[in-house]
Amino acid sequence: MIRLTRVYRFCASHRLHSRQLPDEENAQLYGKCNNPYGHGHNYVLEVTAEGPVDASTGRVCDIATLDALVHQYVVRGLDHCNLNEQAPEFADVVPTSENLALVIDRRLRREWKTAFAGEWPRLSGVRLRETKKNIFEHRS
Amino acid sequence: MIRLTRVYRFCASHRLHSRQLPDEENAQLYGKCNNPYGHGHNYVLEVTAEGPVDASTGRVCDIATLDALVHQYVVRGLDHCNLNEQAPEFADVVPTSENLALVIDRRLRREWKTAFAGEWPRLSGVRLRETKKNIFEHRS
Amino acid sequence: MIRLTRVYRFCASHRLHSRQLPDEENAQLYGKCNNPYGHGHNYVLEVTAEGPVDASTGRVCDIATLDALVHQYVVRGLDHCNLNEQAPEFADVVPTSENLALVIDRRLRREWKTAFAGEWPRLSGVRLRETKKNIFEHRS
Amino acid sequence: MIRLTRVYRFCASHRLHSRQLPDEENAQLYGKCNNPYGHGHNYVLEVTAEGPVDASTGRVCDIATLDALVHQYVVRGLDHCNLNEQAPEFADVVPTSENLALVIDRRLRREWKTAFAGEWPRLSGVRLRETKKNIFEHRS
Amino acid sequence: MIRLTRVYRFCASHRLHSRQLPDEENAQLYGKCNNPYGHGHNYVLEVTAEGPVDASTGRVCDIATLDALVHQYVVRGLDHCNLNEQAPEFADVVPTSENLALVIDRRLRREWKTAFAGEWPRLSGVRLRETKKNIFEHRS
Amino acid sequence: MIRLTRVYRFCASHRLHSRQLPDEENAQLYGKCNNPYGHGHNYVLEVTAEGPVDASTGRVCDIATLDALVHQYVVRGLDHCNLNEQAPEFADVVPTSENLALVIDRRLRREWKTAFAGEWPRLSGVRLRETKKNIFEHRS
Repeated sequence: MIRLTRVYRFCASHRLHSRQLPDEENAQLYGKCNNPYGHGHNYVLEVTAEGPVDASTGRVCDIATLDALVHQYVVRGLDHCNLNEQAPEFADVVPTSENLALVIDRRLRREWKTAFAGEWPRLSGVRLRETKKNIFEHRS
Repeated sequence: MIRLTRVYRFCASHRLHSRQLPDEENAQLYGKCNNPYGHGHNYVLEVTAEGPVDASTGRVCDIATLDALVHQYVVRGLDHCNLNEQAPEFADVVPTSENLALVIDRRLRREWKTAFAGEWPRLSGVRLRETKKNIFEHRS
Repeated sequence: MIRLTRVYRFCASHRLHSRQLPDEENAQLYGKCNNPYGHGHNYVLEVTAEGPVDASTGRVCDIATLDALVHQYVVRGLDHCNLNEQAPEFADVVPTSENLALVIDRRLRREWKTAFAGEWPRLSGVRLRETKKNIFEHRS
Repeated sequence: MIRLTRVYRFCASHRLHSRQLPDEENAQLYGKCNNPYGHGHNYVLEVTAEGPVDASTGRVCDIATLDALVHQYVVRGLDHCNLNEQAPEFADVVPTSENLALVIDRRLRREWKTAFAGEWPRLSGVRLRETKKNIFEHRS
Repeated sequence: MIRLTRVYRFCASHRLHSRQLPDEENAQLYGKCNNPYGHGHNYVLEVTAEGPVDASTGRVCDIATLDALVHQYVVRGLDHCNLNEQAPEFADVVPTSENLALVIDRRLRREWKTAFAGEWPRLSGVRLRETKKNIFEHRS
Repeated sequence: MIRLTRVYRFCASHRLHSRQLPDEENAQLYGKCNNPYGHGHNYVLEVTAEGPVDASTGRVCDIATLDALVHQYVVRGLDHCNLNEQAPEFADVVPTSENLALVIDRRLRREWKTAFAGEWPRLSGVRLRETKKNIFEHRS
């Protein structure tokens, strides 16, 4: 079994503000991230697939297929976007990186079986680096 | 003579759109960066001061003074902000990283003599990394 | 479940020398690290917390609380210090990075319940990078 | 229990081409990596050992022993080499990084017991970074 | 005046061997790099353009034009290639990174005026990172 | 003309304290760096040589010669050492990174002509990274 991790990058803006909480609590909870005008990040996304190595190809998965999947369902819709306004999952959900990691995992999982027909590779997890000091990981 | 470079980080959002140009030209010129909802980056700022090394302190400049200067006049007003809406210099100017580097250089130069009384250190230049692939430098 | 990793940095000096071993064995075992005058490193510390994402805040844990915990009980007492002389745990214990990772884990675990009242987040582990080539990890 | 990860680097060239597949399928499967003249990479290898921390030495394993093992059985025979032509395991096997990670793991595992006499440390896994965007991991 | 640096990556293999020198001298001069089967690297290329910032666009140069230039004349012909066999400039010239930096500079300079019609931007220089420890720079 | 930069690393401890200044001024000037027990860093040293590219070897300088020079006169005497106690230049001089860069430059310059007989390569400069946020450069 080998785990293959591919690294993708996208830049996006967001504002952390929960509609379920009063303004003062939002301000206290999110600090500068609650700024009404928003701010942004260079996100680094790691997608990990795992499986046995195919004896004839020497690969765990077709990398072109993985890249196409991630670009079509994740990067294209998030890169150079405003997460609050342009990613439908954040219409009512705060675009923290925790939630963003869950959204990315869900999008990939939904399309995984269509992209990869067989039992393998499996989606092992996603890891999202918001800044050099802030990393969020979801293991499947 | 020694050049001291200090590295600072801030996260901000922006939209590239020039009021002097028609919409189609903006779209073509800035591509995804023209997205009306904006996007964002983790900016890495390098500020370089140069001067002779003081014989008794062994320093080119007082680092605490430099840090206070950069934080007060640059980082505080840009970090976790929307450059178009919250940095006054971009009310009528496109917040490209070229212009952002010039704005940062101008802010530092304006306050430099107040912070550092003598002939040295001099502000040697600023270098702004918008992404891992995009770096902008202004030498004084 | 999401794992959040925060990255901290501190600079410290140390000397590797075991009082339980004769000098020649120390010299052979630790090589240059046994130098009586000591040497030092820029340590990079990753602290990982895990838990479910809170539905209203979108967070795994309050990051300000985590930062305060790590600064108060770890970074403040180690940064710009001599580990052998100034960290009480190393009065009789060799300050290898293995032991330093264990010390950091123990300090965090001891204060964790006071900082985070509920069942979540849990301390998932600590990872300490002594140099670019030397990384030590403790999983809880 | 602590996991110690040591980082090694080597540069090598390779060509991805499976003798079990027709040329067109090779071309489609490996794309530019199927170029008959080959290409190359700066590989970054992480070897992770795990075990309890020895009470008198404060170490999980003797790092000099680990380094000697990795250099003798892995780095020496791969660094500045052509994997297809000079690593015997790739005489009939495609030198993908999946297979290279497995080869490295097998070489280390085969010599591990000779190098480390006792129950600990154990080889926890190897991680191979082919490029900044392509990482392969084998856990034991 | 602003200097814009764009970062590109390509992977290639090469062998250092000078036809003007006897075999023993080649072996001594280039060491492991003289291996007849070749080896390879992940090259990181920085291309720096400089010029005044355009008042209406806020740009030093059209980045899409710069990218197209570098891809068409540099990256496309070098990426996933064997420099000795596939880059015509190295038919009789040793593909050291010094020479590779000069070749890249010459290719860009030759096409620069066609890509950028006016006086600005100018090609300021190229910087080529062969490994983390080996960097080569040509200033125009 | 090409500039070749080689990267070296060493770990050392130091204490910033000027004998020419009273204790309180030292405390205020150097802050945590004045801690009597010292602290330490992973220093990253870049040495840059420049010259024309030799037509037959394709090299700016013999890299093995440069490495031997830097190791013998710089790295060997500083790595895993206490700068205040073990580097003779700091007997009466504060081991700030400004002064350390000057010391390294002086050591290399003193031995350069012996190592490299001809007019080229020249020592272009040294760059010393004390931490990720603190970089010191001396240009010759």
